[in-house]
Amino acid sequence: MTVLFDDPAKFMEDQLAGFLELYSDRLAGVEGGVVVSDVADRDQVAVVVGGGSGHYPAFSGLVGPGLAHGAVVGNIFTSPSARWAANVGRAADTGRGVVFAFGNYAGDVMNFGLAKQRLVAEGIDVRMVLVTDDIASANEPEKRRGIAGDFSVFKVLGATAAEGLGIDAVEAAGIRANAATRTLGVAFSGCTMPGAQEPLFQVPQGHLGLGLGIHGEPGIEDVPLMRAEQLARLFVDRILAEAPSEAGNRVAAILNGLGTTKYEELFLLWGKVSQELAARGLEVVQPEVGELVTSLDMGGCSLTLMWLDDDLERWWTADAYAPAFRKVSSALPKKSLASAEISTASQMEFAEADAAAQKLATDIRTVAESIATMLAENEDELGRIDAVAGDGDHGRGMLRGINAALQVLKELPEYAGPGPVLGAAGQAWADDAGGTSGVLWGAALEAAGARLENAMYYDAEVAAGVVQAFAQSMVDLGGAHEGDKTLLDSLLPFVQSLEKALHCGVELPQAWSAAAADATAAAADTAQMTPKVGRARPLAAKSLGTPDAGATSMAMIVNRIADHLK
Amino acid sequence: MTVLFDDPAKFMEDQLAGFLELYSDRLAGVEGGVVVSDVADRDQVAVVVGGGSGHYPAFSGLVGPGLAHGAVVGNIFTSPSARWAANVGRAADTGRGVVFAFGNYAGDVMNFGLAKQRLVAEGIDVRMVLVTDDIASANEPEKRRGIAGDFSVFKVLGATAAEGLGIDAVEAAGIRANAATRTLGVAFSGCTMPGAQEPLFQVPQGHLGLGLGIHGEPGIEDVPLMRAEQLARLFVDRILAEAPSEAGNRVAAILNGLGTTKYEELFLLWGKVSQELAARGLEVVQPEVGELVTSLDMGGCSLTLMWLDDDLERWWTADAYAPAFRKVSSALPKKSLASAEISTASQMEFAEADAAAQKLATDIRTVAESIATMLAENEDELGRIDAVAGDGDHGRGMLRGINAALQVLKELPEYAGPGPVLGAAGQAWADDAGGTSGVLWGAALEAAGARLENAMYYDAEVAAGVVQAFAQSMVDLGGAHEGDKTLLDSLLPFVQSLEKALHCGVELPQAWSAAAADATAAAADTAQMTPKVGRARPLAAKSLGTPDAGATSMAMIVNRIADHLK
Repeated sequence: MTVLFDDPAKFMEDQLAGFLELYSDRLAGVEGGVVVSDVADRDQVAVVVGGGSGHYPAFSGLVGPGLAHGAVVGNIFTSPSARWAANVGRAADTGRGVVFAFGNYAGDVMNFGLAKQRLVAEGIDVRMVLVTDDIASANEPEKRRGIAGDFSVFKVLGATAAEGLGIDAVEAAGIRANAATRTLGVAFSGCTMPGAQEPLFQVPQGHLGLGLGIHGEPGIEDVPLMRAEQLARLFVDRILAEAPSEAGNRVAAILNGLGTTKYEELFLLWGKVSQELAARGLEVVQPEVGELVTSLDMGGCSLTLMWLDDDLERWWTADAYAPAFRKVSSALPKKSLASAEISTASQMEFAEADAAAQKLATDIRTVAESIATMLAENEDELGRIDAVAGDGDHGRGMLRGINAALQVLKELPEYAGPGPVLGAAGQAWADDAGGTSGVLWGAALEAAGARLENAMYYDAEVAAGVVQAFAQSMVDLGGAHEGDKTLLDSLLPFVQSLEKALHCGVELPQAWSAAAADATAAAADTAQMTPKVGRARPLAAKSLGTPDAGATSMAMIVNRIADHLK
Repeated sequence: MTVLFDDPAKFMEDQLAGFLELYSDRLAGVEGGVVVSDVADRDQVAVVVGGGSGHYPAFSGLVGPGLAHGAVVGNIFTSPSARWAANVGRAADTGRGVVFAFGNYAGDVMNFGLAKQRLVAEGIDVRMVLVTDDIASANEPEKRRGIAGDFSVFKVLGATAAEGLGIDAVEAAGIRANAATRTLGVAFSGCTMPGAQEPLFQVPQGHLGLGLGIHGEPGIEDVPLMRAEQLARLFVDRILAEAPSEAGNRVAAILNGLGTTKYEELFLLWGKVSQELAARGLEVVQPEVGELVTSLDMGGCSLTLMWLDDDLERWWTADAYAPAFRKVSSALPKKSLASAEISTASQMEFAEADAAAQKLATDIRTVAESIATMLAENEDELGRIDAVAGDGDHGRGMLRGINAALQVLKELPEYAGPGPVLGAAGQAWADDAGGTSGVLWGAALEAAGARLENAMYYDAEVAAGVVQAFAQSMVDLGGAHEGDKTLLDSLLPFVQSLEKALHCGVELPQAWSAAAADATAAAADTAQMTPKVGRARPLAAKSLGTPDAGATSMAMIVNRIADHLK
């Protein structure tokens, strides 16, 4: 959804004004676009890129040393007019001529074509390089449209101009780069024009649109959603099937996000793509993963490969410094960290416990498995409660913690006693779950384990001491108080109820069971509280009426233990 | 929606693996995060930032010369464990100590605190700098959470470390930067955890959430959606009300996008924000507009100001070179383009036409206004048709063209004849609308105007000649053929029908009316065609069943002219 604008019809002008204000130290505005402000200093062929807006950093974000000298900026998804293209070309020209570079769309071809006619009539040498990288858009290479491959072609053009080559050589390099470039994209969701209420298209639930356009055109074919690994294979398979003849084994690569497919997702996919490329014997040179040619707030991504020869590799890797693309090789470090310097975690050692203690340790393992099952069943519900005023990760975090604990328990020797078992579980929980609840649960389990040591049975006294150590750790580390709407608000009532019952001589199973019921009630009562600490505090009002997720999971766990004590 | 992943529970590990592969030339992975690979070359205090993932480029994208030496990477929106933080700190330390910097969240405070204890026990000097920039999160500054102000604090820490300062000075600079930094954010839409079907929260339709969190926490208060100008004022008003005491008039600024609020929107808002700041007498130093601290695919943005003194300004503007933030001052141009060099459009001149010709020109203006009204009424419908296999901008493009034509007609002298009037309208249409239909309509109107010259009336012969010139221009320039599913598919049947009727002696109004009806039928028939040219061609199959938008608007326009001829 495009939200920020004043008059939707003036979106392009308004965004360009802000952009020019931002980069006023290095770019100048002309009617119809932007040019580098040091045109007069550059005795170079002018590379002028362009097309509609809505694709940032294409096109204005790619203007700067080593890249484009100017960008023509049309309205959203609309070719700029011939007058605008001519204006920007004229402003960027230093007398060595202008190369217009743009994606192969009818409107751009016509408007840049007319602009070329006008400038040629004025005595300026003008060439045109059309980008035709999208293999999904046509079988005939010359009919294909330009998508993220715009970037690799622009990059080569900018590098050749910066090398001082003449206009024939710059044009030829651009054509060569385009001939070596192939892209395939997929759409996950459509984009919304400023002022519009509905996206331009929608991808059916559970599907992706194969062969996307970068102007909100839906994919050519809707196929079922696939895992990242499968998508990586599909990208590589299809692009390699369209490899240029005489292709070598060195490629530039661009994994481009369309707008709402975010960085972490792209990195994840890149991990799979790079494995696929390596498996096919391709060597990737300085890959780019990020947003280079977007489509407003569209969801989706594309893979571009440009097969390199020595010249193309030099131009692809050359320095550039534009608002949205900066590569300065001298700023890179030279030396690598030896992997031996990287520290590893220490190994734990365990003394052998006697049989009764081992039996108790086995009971703890059984209960832990039971708690893991219970947490898995309640993951969604805990997440839902947590999302009301928090980030909704409580269910997942608890599950991650208990699963880490179970994993380390499987690796422990069977002869380990109950204290070390609890301690190891706590350490694994804290290390793997992270987060607030992770460190609190981990430390509390460690404290409980230290108290338990190699106890051989659990009577009222042992249980009370262990529970006390567990709770005290949470109080000390968390720094919260009863009534702050945290896990303490079910834990502390539980501890008080348990201690009182045990003190009065009630048997452990009955005392625990009654205390667990009190914990359940106390957890429910947190719905009436407002948070005093932690991330939920700023959202105090929204939190009213919903119980605390940490107090709720605490109550669930002591109840599950009660079931086992019976 | 987070779409790309394999196992949602391993999202963080998988994305980190891809990230490390991508930057293997300069970063090294350690358990729990990343460090610069040239640690051993840097005799510097190590700045180690961190927190949960889902915030890229925070935190791993900010590791590099002049910025952080390492980043601890937790699970999505979850604090990393103490072990991970200790690991990364240990790997980044060169013997001059470690400064941990992170947002003020309970989990991070506890885990980094424990990590500090462990490292101190190993003999490493460790300090902690907490970021507390979010003014919406608490009244008491020390209770505030850290959001996009993370970046300004990290930037200062990195610059001081790069200057070779000792750990006391680096820590003090970080605390000073945090004390000078204020942020306010707004949310437009929630974010979705990998594997989840629903976003963590939703902003009510037509509202924005004021005081967002960066972990999918909803805003503190839902307020009605506002224009960019109003939002800029709100940001500046509220942040200035929280300015530090002794604040000067120089500020660093960050306009940060949360994930799906895209660049063009941010630039547009920045234009308004910079005006507001200038109006309050504030001078902005090297503002940053883009995505620096995100929240998965959340919609929203925040404004951060850091009030500068001479030291903070030097550190804010210092060079840095990380994956996602690069500033190399020597790469910037030195000289500016004089504004006089920027070309402007030429002025048209008009001869005075006689009275009858002026009358005909007035008729043309009246018809143009009528067509504009009709196109405004049909903008949405034309957009809808166009969106089926195109980018949905046809209605808007046509409206922009006719409105540009009307505007220039208002500025023309009243004595201009019909030919110049049509010609000027065509030129304005092409210049302002851009796009394929813009250049075709513009050129065709110019051609029609050239044919019309200063005709004083329209008879059958004049009308036939003008229409012929109009159509021929579209055929020549567009290069399409009948049956390609373009505007020619209603225009050419219209021309044939009109010429035939006129040839047989039918009066112009009747002949035009009948031909317009034929155009309507022909436009409807394009629903059975598949596109052969243009952007819609790759989507041929999807296009079946929907008429061509250009053919449809053409038929609408000739029908509207028919109404006036009657």
